[in-house]
Amino acid sequence: MTANQGPLSGFRDMLASQMIPRHQMLNTIKGVYESYGFAPLKTPALERYATLSGKYGEEGDKLMYKFEDQGGREVALRYDLTVPLARVVAQYGSQLPNPYKRYAVGEVWRGERAQAGRYREFTQFDADTVGSKSPLADAEMIAMMADSMKALGGDALIRVNNRRILDALAEKAGLTDEKDVRTFMSSIDKVEKIGLGKALAEILKNFGQKATTIASEYLAVQGSTEQKLQSLARIFGDSEAVAEGVENLSEVFKILAAAGYSEEQLVFDQAIARGLDYYTGIIYETNLKGAESLGSVCSGGRYDNLVKALGGPDTPAVGTSVGVDRLFDGLQQIGQLKTARTNTQVLIANFDSADSSEYMRLATELRAAGIATEIYYDPAKLGKQIGFADKLGIPYVILLGSEERTKAVATIRSLDSGKQVEVPLAELAATLRKMSP
Amino acid sequence: MTANQGPLSGFRDMLASQMIPRHQMLNTIKGVYESYGFAPLKTPALERYATLSGKYGEEGDKLMYKFEDQGGREVALRYDLTVPLARVVAQYGSQLPNPYKRYAVGEVWRGERAQAGRYREFTQFDADTVGSKSPLADAEMIAMMADSMKALGGDALIRVNNRRILDALAEKAGLTDEKDVRTFMSSIDKVEKIGLGKALAEILKNFGQKATTIASEYLAVQGSTEQKLQSLARIFGDSEAVAEGVENLSEVFKILAAAGYSEEQLVFDQAIARGLDYYTGIIYETNLKGAESLGSVCSGGRYDNLVKALGGPDTPAVGTSVGVDRLFDGLQQIGQLKTARTNTQVLIANFDSADSSEYMRLATELRAAGIATEIYYDPAKLGKQIGFADKLGIPYVILLGSEERTKAVATIRSLDSGKQVEVPLAELAATLRKMSP
Repeated sequence: MTANQGPLSGFRDMLASQMIPRHQMLNTIKGVYESYGFAPLKTPALERYATLSGKYGEEGDKLMYKFEDQGGREVALRYDLTVPLARVVAQYGSQLPNPYKRYAVGEVWRGERAQAGRYREFTQFDADTVGSKSPLADAEMIAMMADSMKALGGDALIRVNNRRILDALAEKAGLTDEKDVRTFMSSIDKVEKIGLGKALAEILKNFGQKATTIASEYLAVQGSTEQKLQSLARIFGDSEAVAEGVENLSEVFKILAAAGYSEEQLVFDQAIARGLDYYTGIIYETNLKGAESLGSVCSGGRYDNLVKALGGPDTPAVGTSVGVDRLFDGLQQIGQLKTARTNTQVLIANFDSADSSEYMRLATELRAAGIATEIYYDPAKLGKQIGFADKLGIPYVILLGSEERTKAVATIRSLDSGKQVEVPLAELAATLRKMSP
Repeated sequence: MTANQGPLSGFRDMLASQMIPRHQMLNTIKGVYESYGFAPLKTPALERYATLSGKYGEEGDKLMYKFEDQGGREVALRYDLTVPLARVVAQYGSQLPNPYKRYAVGEVWRGERAQAGRYREFTQFDADTVGSKSPLADAEMIAMMADSMKALGGDALIRVNNRRILDALAEKAGLTDEKDVRTFMSSIDKVEKIGLGKALAEILKNFGQKATTIASEYLAVQGSTEQKLQSLARIFGDSEAVAEGVENLSEVFKILAAAGYSEEQLVFDQAIARGLDYYTGIIYETNLKGAESLGSVCSGGRYDNLVKALGGPDTPAVGTSVGVDRLFDGLQQIGQLKTARTNTQVLIANFDSADSSEYMRLATELRAAGIATEIYYDPAKLGKQIGFADKLGIPYVILLGSEERTKAVATIRSLDSGKQVEVPLAELAATLRKMSP
């Protein structure tokens, strides 16, 4: 074995066939986020260990890549993009706009046990609004997710709930211990995965009949979003928490309905609980229609206490995070990723190295006209050159031999149809532009 | 002091005012590289230490961020983008196109002593052609650098030399020891910085009169690129190395002249030597006109033995690397960076939270028309809302109060001129599109 054995386990090289559609996907999301007024932020890959430690629970501290640098400082690789955001909010304070709407896309590193589909380096694409409690800020997060999926050629089904409603449910079930509440929520969250019966059985085993009855009543609520919210308000009676949750969701759904987002893409789902502890208000998950089995590709919620807990000022916040790798797989599943090994549209064949200047002159002209152009560097056999273009997926080969040059023409060969057409050199760029896929 | 003290020394946060022009800059370069048929590659931030160690000399091993991961593996953060490229070429072999033209943009990490303008995390933007010895491949690198600078609104002065000519010079100066050759080259390379006199004095002190005389004769060669190359061929007589170097440069300059690249942007400069040992043929550096004091913003050369030395197959290669941070500074110096804190074009003012749905409906319409739009989330005083837009640089504020809504109009207020204009709601998007900067 040599030192060059490929990337570390859990790490990936991405060649052009992955990177080209990935760039397109990320640019599309970026375009949507910017249309909502979110602006980019970039933070370092390495942070002080003290900034990150204790922020992700025991497991996080274990999975974090931490080490001593050359100067004996304890440092760690970024574990997510949220703690660095809190650090930035704490640090730059009033230099930032208020509310501060930022997006960030970048790798994060977690030393997970290596297994299929789980990576130690993966990409997150986050958008967060820090400094507003407005339901408009919540609604925009959901609209952005729906718009992103649409812009990527997919349809989103966004399922929404509010932690205040879940708080009321836990309270009515008689649970106060934090760990109990978490276990209870996790059973609720599993309904979709393991079915209602099994989820209720879990609750019965852990918390007894009273909790099971109330959970069952809660999960049985049916109808349109409006009907469900009304039913919940009725079941829970005078719970302040439920009133808050229902009011928030009613307002968010009203705003989104006015903007044209339908129940086709947006539903209240009381079984959504989300794994992380820190949510305080609205929460949401997004499935890509046709790739539901992948699970949520984009999720988040409101976390009004987190920025402070992470060392920032006491400020409300709401955010969403795209699982870039999972969304990529999803778009591939529904046939909305155009895979390509190249962006090149034209290969200029090489008949004679003495003619390099002619090829370069033509390539420069085509590039200036916006046509991505390669020159085959050596005068290999034409079959080999066409094979090169074909393998890469370059659609056209230009033949500019001495005969063509005498007549001031060039031949365009389409690798798709195998057909050739002779075009005056002066019209070549315009002709190719019309032919471009 | 709390844990949140800002980024580690030598690391940087980049807020929107830096990130927005930076994105634009990187996208422009990417566009140029793709127009030449280069395709993206992404490799992990972490590599096996064994893959990187010994590849950057003693200093490199010292500056590298290396540590043991949770599984006891020796790993290190990427030190440049070239060694990972060699690993990829070794690993994927015939799966890659031949020649393999790839670009890569990404952070690299070096534990340099922290000082002004020197960072421990910085970005490289590389393009390399692996698998061709053709002067066309060399010429394209230079054309790409010139095109990139032009696309960014600047003018490049690219200075070109060939290591074969420098090899001949060292030989004629009687130097054979590798370390001596390196010291000698470094004096040649310093001519621009310290002046001809001091450079020659260094050579005299280190290597005596004979070496100084030949260096002096070499550096004194004047005239156009063609004249200089002819003079060198004459001075060095029957040197095979010079013949190779001169032939390569003549061909490259011929190809570039045919494609319209003039001596204004492209010169032969026999004093360019480049610091790194591994170059074997053409070498080049690029100054941005008007920001020459920054030094080279983009440089590279041919390195036919490096891929093999790094563990890849024996294959020729030529490449270029943009110093992203330095180029950014240079573009700022020559006034070609449009700094912006936001991409948002329009802020919809908030008069009453009861009207959230109206604001969202309008925002959705404007966004769909391609106008980046924010809603002010809370019904604050109008002055505060306008102040928010003004501070961020959002050019227009839309006023949609109850009076306006009754008349089915909206008021556009330009923060630049302070003027207001009332527009029918149905024509708002079209009007704003015309007003967009």
